[in-house]
Amino acid sequence: MSAGLCEKPLFKKCCILGLGLMGGSMGLALGEHKVVRERWGYDLDAAAMLQAKKRGAVDRTAALPHALADAELVILAMPVRQIMRTLEMLGQNVSCLPEGAIVTDLGSTKEKVVQAMDAVLPAGVSGIGGHPMAGSEKAGIGAADALLLKNAVYILTPARQMKAAALHKMRQTVRAIGARPLVLEAAAHDKMAALVSHLPQLVAVALVNSLGDSGQTKGPLLRLAGNGFRDTTRIAMGDPGMWYDIFQTNKLFLKESLQIFMKELDLIYNCLEQEDEKEAIARLSRAGSVRRQLTALS
Amino acid sequence: MSAGLCEKPLFKKCCILGLGLMGGSMGLALGEHKVVRERWGYDLDAAAMLQAKKRGAVDRTAALPHALADAELVILAMPVRQIMRTLEMLGQNVSCLPEGAIVTDLGSTKEKVVQAMDAVLPAGVSGIGGHPMAGSEKAGIGAADALLLKNAVYILTPARQMKAAALHKMRQTVRAIGARPLVLEAAAHDKMAALVSHLPQLVAVALVNSLGDSGQTKGPLLRLAGNGFRDTTRIAMGDPGMWYDIFQTNKLFLKESLQIFMKELDLIYNCLEQEDEKEAIARLSRAGSVRRQLTALS
Repeated sequence: MSAGLCEKPLFKKCCILGLGLMGGSMGLALGEHKVVRERWGYDLDAAAMLQAKKRGAVDRTAALPHALADAELVILAMPVRQIMRTLEMLGQNVSCLPEGAIVTDLGSTKEKVVQAMDAVLPAGVSGIGGHPMAGSEKAGIGAADALLLKNAVYILTPARQMKAAALHKMRQTVRAIGARPLVLEAAAHDKMAALVSHLPQLVAVALVNSLGDSGQTKGPLLRLAGNGFRDTTRIAMGDPGMWYDIFQTNKLFLKESLQIFMKELDLIYNCLEQEDEKEAIARLSRAGSVRRQLTALS
Repeated sequence: MSAGLCEKPLFKKCCILGLGLMGGSMGLALGEHKVVRERWGYDLDAAAMLQAKKRGAVDRTAALPHALADAELVILAMPVRQIMRTLEMLGQNVSCLPEGAIVTDLGSTKEKVVQAMDAVLPAGVSGIGGHPMAGSEKAGIGAADALLLKNAVYILTPARQMKAAALHKMRQTVRAIGARPLVLEAAAHDKMAALVSHLPQLVAVALVNSLGDSGQTKGPLLRLAGNGFRDTTRIAMGDPGMWYDIFQTNKLFLKESLQIFMKELDLIYNCLEQEDEKEAIARLSRAGSVRRQLTALS
């Protein structure tokens, strides 16, 4: 099936738990492309629920477990540690889900989520971790937008308790909302995300704080900061609570990436100390050529 | 004097050594604002000299030491290690410069330059290091543009052999071309530049090479790299030779910055290991608020 309207809804009922930026955007996209006949939603914040309904991100809202009853698709749209807690709760209410139901999430790290799915979901319910590679500086249901997911790479990480038919249906769903499914093992996702997303975030934060530590953020220091510094540290303005959650739930792969990175820093610095111009330039050139591959891709 | 045309040229003759992006832009700016009556230039590359003249970046070109004779302003526009070598050469030809002449440069690090000025310039010639905070991804005289210097912060770092009148004249020159002079000690410049420019460059290079080291630059890894990675590593595409020159001539302050940065990385990572959420979030929040100061400035 290509992107666009579903000829027939893939699901009769879905339930989105967490109606913020991502949950709201997912709800809007599922509605726009008619993927689900009836979209139910729940959020701890009553105002968010109200707004989600008003904006058309969900058709109905209800308390738990009522919102979940008979849902063929359950979408957990919250920070990862909260997803883990919600999955525990779900384990106690799982009897209200029909045979063949799919439980998925929109969290930024995947191994912990998939482990929690493995621990609580019964044989008849399929767990599939999900990570749409999309976001915004803004947060909350007010910023939700179906376009956020358009053309996004959307990672799917199957849990052990998963039927092939469920994965097929999840891929259809991702395509239906205009995103691009990519199936990966949860650990492979987390390892790569540590390198291309979590490590750069940590590094940007540490770069900015290095300025702070030098006790010089007043005066000429910031006047000397040009576009290079601006670009390199832009992401340091990301939401601290969200990033703590990501770092904490991907600690081991982040540590591994950090070690690779620090080793590389040492190698380049040693070239400078030893005035090994040839090797230093080789490393600088290599970075430029790998980075240009990325530019060519976009 | 405000930015704009000089009522009367500040200098009868200047000589720009090195007619690439920066030297060419400086020549164009000095011409446009009529700061110098006659702009002479020299470059090792004869084609660059020809093009500089054709583009109006200089009025005349000549070989050395002829181009230097009677120049009241000498501008060294080349990488820092080459500036140091050129200053040695200049020391042997300094008798062709008039009493009261100014020797300046456009290099990215300042302490080595000012030390070299101190070593070779006679009492009658004033040395003033210069660093216009401006650049482009492009290089060479073809990319030269007077607008490059417009509104740029332009650091001036006096050498010991400098007369107050010379500094005054240099500030007038910087204002005349529309840039904003900021006088700093050479070491203070280099220490700050290490933190806001050279360290971020080294870090961006190491981030990209960390991907390379992981042996995964083919396949899904680059599909997972989003805007965060793109922004953080954009500067890794900078010219390797230029950056090696900068790193090499600011090695000690770069090392100091690297140590501050690595300590900060360790501190944040330790918060994660010890699950000290409060302290971790405090550090992430602090980075966000320092970085927002920068956004507010621009």
